[in-house]
Amino acid sequence: MSGTSNLYITKTDLAADYRAIRDESARICALLHTDDYQIQSIVETSPPKWHIAHVSWFFEAFVLPEFHSAYHPFRPEFAYLFNSYYETVGSMHPRPARGMLSRPTVEEVYRYRAHVDEHMLELIERVEEARWPEFAYRVTLGLNHEQQHQELLLMDIKHNLSVNPTRPAYSDSLQVSEPASVPMVWIDRPGGIMDIGHAGDGFAYDNETPRHQVLVRDHRLASRPVSNGEYLAFIEDDGYARPELWLSDGWSLLKREGWQQPLYWEQRDGVWLQFTLGGMRTLNPDEPVCHVSFYEADAYARWAGKRLPSEAELELMLAQQPVAGNFLDHTRLQPQPGEGQWYGDVWEWSASPYAPYPGFKPLAGSMGEYNGKFMCNQMVLRGGCCLTPPGHLRASYRNFFYPHDRWPVTGVRLAEDA
Amino acid sequence: MSGTSNLYITKTDLAADYRAIRDESARICALLHTDDYQIQSIVETSPPKWHIAHVSWFFEAFVLPEFHSAYHPFRPEFAYLFNSYYETVGSMHPRPARGMLSRPTVEEVYRYRAHVDEHMLELIERVEEARWPEFAYRVTLGLNHEQQHQELLLMDIKHNLSVNPTRPAYSDSLQVSEPASVPMVWIDRPGGIMDIGHAGDGFAYDNETPRHQVLVRDHRLASRPVSNGEYLAFIEDDGYARPELWLSDGWSLLKREGWQQPLYWEQRDGVWLQFTLGGMRTLNPDEPVCHVSFYEADAYARWAGKRLPSEAELELMLAQQPVAGNFLDHTRLQPQPGEGQWYGDVWEWSASPYAPYPGFKPLAGSMGEYNGKFMCNQMVLRGGCCLTPPGHLRASYRNFFYPHDRWPVTGVRLAEDA
Amino acid sequence: MSGTSNLYITKTDLAADYRAIRDESARICALLHTDDYQIQSIVETSPPKWHIAHVSWFFEAFVLPEFHSAYHPFRPEFAYLFNSYYETVGSMHPRPARGMLSRPTVEEVYRYRAHVDEHMLELIERVEEARWPEFAYRVTLGLNHEQQHQELLLMDIKHNLSVNPTRPAYSDSLQVSEPASVPMVWIDRPGGIMDIGHAGDGFAYDNETPRHQVLVRDHRLASRPVSNGEYLAFIEDDGYARPELWLSDGWSLLKREGWQQPLYWEQRDGVWLQFTLGGMRTLNPDEPVCHVSFYEADAYARWAGKRLPSEAELELMLAQQPVAGNFLDHTRLQPQPGEGQWYGDVWEWSASPYAPYPGFKPLAGSMGEYNGKFMCNQMVLRGGCCLTPPGHLRASYRNFFYPHDRWPVTGVRLAEDA
Amino acid sequence: MSGTSNLYITKTDLAADYRAIRDESARICALLHTDDYQIQSIVETSPPKWHIAHVSWFFEAFVLPEFHSAYHPFRPEFAYLFNSYYETVGSMHPRPARGMLSRPTVEEVYRYRAHVDEHMLELIERVEEARWPEFAYRVTLGLNHEQQHQELLLMDIKHNLSVNPTRPAYSDSLQVSEPASVPMVWIDRPGGIMDIGHAGDGFAYDNETPRHQVLVRDHRLASRPVSNGEYLAFIEDDGYARPELWLSDGWSLLKREGWQQPLYWEQRDGVWLQFTLGGMRTLNPDEPVCHVSFYEADAYARWAGKRLPSEAELELMLAQQPVAGNFLDHTRLQPQPGEGQWYGDVWEWSASPYAPYPGFKPLAGSMGEYNGKFMCNQMVLRGGCCLTPPGHLRASYRNFFYPHDRWPVTGVRLAEDA
Repeated sequence: MSGTSNLYITKTDLAADYRAIRDESARICALLHTDDYQIQSIVETSPPKWHIAHVSWFFEAFVLPEFHSAYHPFRPEFAYLFNSYYETVGSMHPRPARGMLSRPTVEEVYRYRAHVDEHMLELIERVEEARWPEFAYRVTLGLNHEQQHQELLLMDIKHNLSVNPTRPAYSDSLQVSEPASVPMVWIDRPGGIMDIGHAGDGFAYDNETPRHQVLVRDHRLASRPVSNGEYLAFIEDDGYARPELWLSDGWSLLKREGWQQPLYWEQRDGVWLQFTLGGMRTLNPDEPVCHVSFYEADAYARWAGKRLPSEAELELMLAQQPVAGNFLDHTRLQPQPGEGQWYGDVWEWSASPYAPYPGFKPLAGSMGEYNGKFMCNQMVLRGGCCLTPPGHLRASYRNFFYPHDRWPVTGVRLAEDA
Repeated sequence: MSGTSNLYITKTDLAADYRAIRDESARICALLHTDDYQIQSIVETSPPKWHIAHVSWFFEAFVLPEFHSAYHPFRPEFAYLFNSYYETVGSMHPRPARGMLSRPTVEEVYRYRAHVDEHMLELIERVEEARWPEFAYRVTLGLNHEQQHQELLLMDIKHNLSVNPTRPAYSDSLQVSEPASVPMVWIDRPGGIMDIGHAGDGFAYDNETPRHQVLVRDHRLASRPVSNGEYLAFIEDDGYARPELWLSDGWSLLKREGWQQPLYWEQRDGVWLQFTLGGMRTLNPDEPVCHVSFYEADAYARWAGKRLPSEAELELMLAQQPVAGNFLDHTRLQPQPGEGQWYGDVWEWSASPYAPYPGFKPLAGSMGEYNGKFMCNQMVLRGGCCLTPPGHLRASYRNFFYPHDRWPVTGVRLAEDA
Repeated sequence: MSGTSNLYITKTDLAADYRAIRDESARICALLHTDDYQIQSIVETSPPKWHIAHVSWFFEAFVLPEFHSAYHPFRPEFAYLFNSYYETVGSMHPRPARGMLSRPTVEEVYRYRAHVDEHMLELIERVEEARWPEFAYRVTLGLNHEQQHQELLLMDIKHNLSVNPTRPAYSDSLQVSEPASVPMVWIDRPGGIMDIGHAGDGFAYDNETPRHQVLVRDHRLASRPVSNGEYLAFIEDDGYARPELWLSDGWSLLKREGWQQPLYWEQRDGVWLQFTLGGMRTLNPDEPVCHVSFYEADAYARWAGKRLPSEAELELMLAQQPVAGNFLDHTRLQPQPGEGQWYGDVWEWSASPYAPYPGFKPLAGSMGEYNGKFMCNQMVLRGGCCLTPPGHLRASYRNFFYPHDRWPVTGVRLAEDA
Repeated sequence: MSGTSNLYITKTDLAADYRAIRDESARICALLHTDDYQIQSIVETSPPKWHIAHVSWFFEAFVLPEFHSAYHPFRPEFAYLFNSYYETVGSMHPRPARGMLSRPTVEEVYRYRAHVDEHMLELIERVEEARWPEFAYRVTLGLNHEQQHQELLLMDIKHNLSVNPTRPAYSDSLQVSEPASVPMVWIDRPGGIMDIGHAGDGFAYDNETPRHQVLVRDHRLASRPVSNGEYLAFIEDDGYARPELWLSDGWSLLKREGWQQPLYWEQRDGVWLQFTLGGMRTLNPDEPVCHVSFYEADAYARWAGKRLPSEAELELMLAQQPVAGNFLDHTRLQPQPGEGQWYGDVWEWSASPYAPYPGFKPLAGSMGEYNGKFMCNQMVLRGGCCLTPPGHLRASYRNFFYPHDRWPVTGVRLAEDA
């Protein structure tokens, strides 16, 4: 996946990456029935069909009209249907109504993909030399964008299937983990004036820049994420019934929604089960807990007498680790027992609100809407998860969700002051 | 279609009717893509897939377990998924979430249908003589139930497609009507003590019984439904902006929803268009107005200095007409210009709240939930519409919708006191 | 109270009635603190201050400008603030925001009343002879309007106080009833073609007219309303958990709202208590059950193997009874054990949807909005209750509420076919 | 007001401060009618009566039971009614229903205050020497708490009156400002490792601690808040119609709520008016803009090519200024034209999400719920406003509101990178 980390790429490499990443989206959907493509179980999720069309639209909106003078949109109305949130590009179909689009059909959406691919690959071959850097940057952005949607696609498919009372599996052949207890130990981390953020010429999103100094205090990080078994102790200690452990907004939500355990957990006849992409499974106490909101992560940490790490604390550790772990290519599609796990398995909630770095400048034009306008009310998460495509991440990568979100694969890493 | 009007039917006749009616449901859906089967555009509509499964479930719930000792349900969980509202049969999937079921797939639902059909046809052959009347009654009820859903299926498909910004047609080959103005004249109708309701041994729903006396006053009925052109005059006379014309609940709703015309009407560049099962079309001023709520029908009548007819007034006229008209078999799937039109074209809002007839007794057992429990807050409509299967209606047939409903094919017949 | 039942009244009599009825509103409010005047506990109730101002506004809107050339409105903005629903008179303050008006103050509202009274009494003295009939009619309408609001005032005060966790009493000195069991017997009532509706020259609302023929079947009426003790048997027989007893809309509401007993009932330590205008009291099993919705009345009747009476059945019986009973002047402000009770105690839900009588014509002009526009979605109630001012009722009087309403003093009279 | 800034206070001083601060609450309410005490116009505001009772309850909950062995609560149920959000103290009346409490009456609430005051003043005299520090701390916290509510009381009164269509003034005698244009200049501010947060032995809330190092970059601060006239230029430049200027959550809200100007602005006949505590007034272009949400402040800054300051940047400047400005004692109750205005006039939105300082520890016990549990989803504001009681503020003072809040007196200070 060199293409996404080095913008000075050859045509051959870019075309290869383009093909590989585009194919991966189709591969993820290969297990779906046409029926599955249509569902939008909650406003936060999108139907797979919409994802598949939207990632093609991205090239149609931001690359093809600029670089391919003869390009005609596949169907002009797709610009309205498959724009996600780019207000400066034009109006868009309302997000909560994405599940209401039976047309275009799945079959037509794949023809749309093929149409875009044909023109994109042609363009990669013949784009003027002089425009290559800008072109390569935009294509790379489009491919990174598609990788983000691959992860979301699986999170959304999982939620879409979970609301079906029959709890159908996305795949019947996913391997199940064994219990394998690993002690949690504390790693001393020195403070000081440190640098975080992206630097260098590899690809990064605008929200990772500029690289800048931060003041970090001496602290300790847990050697692995909190496990299901540890989280169960919190539940059994009445964690969901003790308001003093919770942020006020979290407690209100807990009461309103009746939360008593993480999303996807069910207790049947005294046994804890968990809905996974492989269907309902007995809870493995040694897997990292996942599908918890920021509120739950924060309440757990308070109960444990610890705190959540800041995003700087996480990034500084991530920068010292190889970018490797239980990613999408590990094919379990579920967090696994283990140690370290700085990358992969579960997105780790940081204690840091998602805000612009000092001196942050969004991308110019419509692509400036990619990240910056979401810098309010959300929390930063770090490290990727078991659904993240390999090659997509960096130490400086900033993901963000609302503190109430539970449908992403989110988990808990503890920290404490030294 | 003798099967549905005479309960003392032969095996051969019943099997023939069973096949014909069941096939009709599949025929209606033949124009759909798998994608279209999934949509629930508003809580009142159901996804076509759900309709198709539900009408099979009806036989599985109310006929097969009673008469077929060796019958095994196709999949036991379907009893939960496809029960509509029979509380006494068991719990059910929530109505607003019917569009969230990607599984079973369309393909599996058709296998379900085939499974039910196979056992039903077998049963028709071999059911004990002694149980024939009860059996034949229940099968007939199931077939009438399916016919009701055929009409709803088309109304729901229309709405499901209408919320798509691209306004796709259900069929591209539906013939379009020509303008053909027909004068509205007034027909004198005598009052007196009259009998309405079902009598005799043909099939009828419980809500049409018992036949009973009503006191009717001398009155006049309009010779045809109100046309689009006539309704336009109401719009142009500020009908949607004059509260004195409206029932209070209707006026509140009009303001909250911003109603300014019937459902499916759109004005583009000064031209009125209408969404139909054949796609967007220029409004034909001579077609009966349709997709108006009771509130709109009532406001129109007040504006016109008339009133809506009572259900007794309509039934007494219907009883004097042949049961014929622009039904589903006329294949236009749209009200047509014409005269009389007592049956077919548009369901006509009566001024009568849907209430039990004097001495009404619901069916015994779970089938008693079919009609009686809805006898509150709804209004009676009479005469069928262009989507009603032929053979399904009678003069005594009572349809009912909420006064705010606009997605059914509903229109306006005027009346006045003599 | 002859003034309200005979429109050919002398100036002296009209002035006396005007004073008496106007004084009664103030007397009802004499027990309130200024604080109590402000509350709107649910959208259906209005703050007492609003009632007090609105009933004066009625004279300012419909009498004074027409008959008193020199009249200046007390404050012009009151026309906006205290118009209830007369769209043709002008725009109005939104109903749900009536509790948001701290100004005018209670003190100012009473000055408004005094201002209106002064001019009204002056007008009664000096209105031209020729205009007397129209004038007397409108004043009489205004006084009947005020009497309706007196009843509502007490219902609303009760609800407003009930939402206070301390359950304060409206009055600490209301006498409490003793248990006094009276058997319920069945009274045979003959059917036939009967006349109902108002006739004669006494006052009546437009909705009671025209007098007309109805066809009634032989039937029986219960000799008294259903008691608390009888209703308890329904609760104890799982009445609130058996869907087959309920109308569909009622069952949905029951589940959504968690209904398990009538409004104002609470069980503490196994004892049933009831909130009354006299505060919390032990439930007297022999008082008529009250504060039940139409859905509960209907479910109770079904459970009991009976039905609710039609409004015609009730009116025909009421017409044979003296207009006397436990009304507002009995000062208990609570239904009492007893027999007959055709008038007073509890408004009795009929099985009849509120609809126009054949040939109904609303009053001309803005007063036509008084009744007619509510003739949809509501049910008729008959006979008045313990909060109804004496002199306000007639046999033909039609009250109406939504089937879900529980804050009025509503009860259950059973009927059955002969 | 030395009492609130020095915890080692004499009995005489503490009693004097107690009396002065408690009296101030009553003084603020002296202009209210009893009617005004009851209103809760939106869920965020509380009725004045509730505020008045709640600040007394604070002493009854956190001081009297601990230090006054013979104390009996005035009425035990007040612990339920007037607890705001202290879950660990017990259950509480739901916030949205605070406006539904007509009892206790205003008169009784003032008796409650007198009862608490009597016992508090007695306790100040006779509390044991050994317990003085803890006692003095808690009383001081209670008095600071009351000062916070004095500010909220006026903000809430303003909103409560604003929803009345007659727009009544809180006071008719507030002096109106004159236009007085003052240029905005840019003040260079050096970066570096700086200390912020509270230190020393004066009173501060837990959320201001611990004092800690922050890394600040060179920057510039505007010499005064943004004025109404400057904000008008943003409006006239289509600021409310350009999504690229807005955070995504803000843009959604703007569209949903139809925002086109700050809260309380109205345009009549082309003239801009503003609702103030003195009633409707012509907008003075030189007053600081106020009643803008964080979203509006942020969009304005983006439009102006600037940014909002961080809370550290503001605190470092505040620490160099005298704690003086247009506070509650200036009696204009409205921001005034001026320069500097670091304290007073308008609370200034910072760009900093409200989060715990490194090493933050909430107070022990129930008082730990005072601040910490709100550290999510809100933004920090600095500097106080024209309704803040003098003596209540410090440079380290952290106020916080949700980014959508507009009813507080909130304004905009611009910053830019050096």
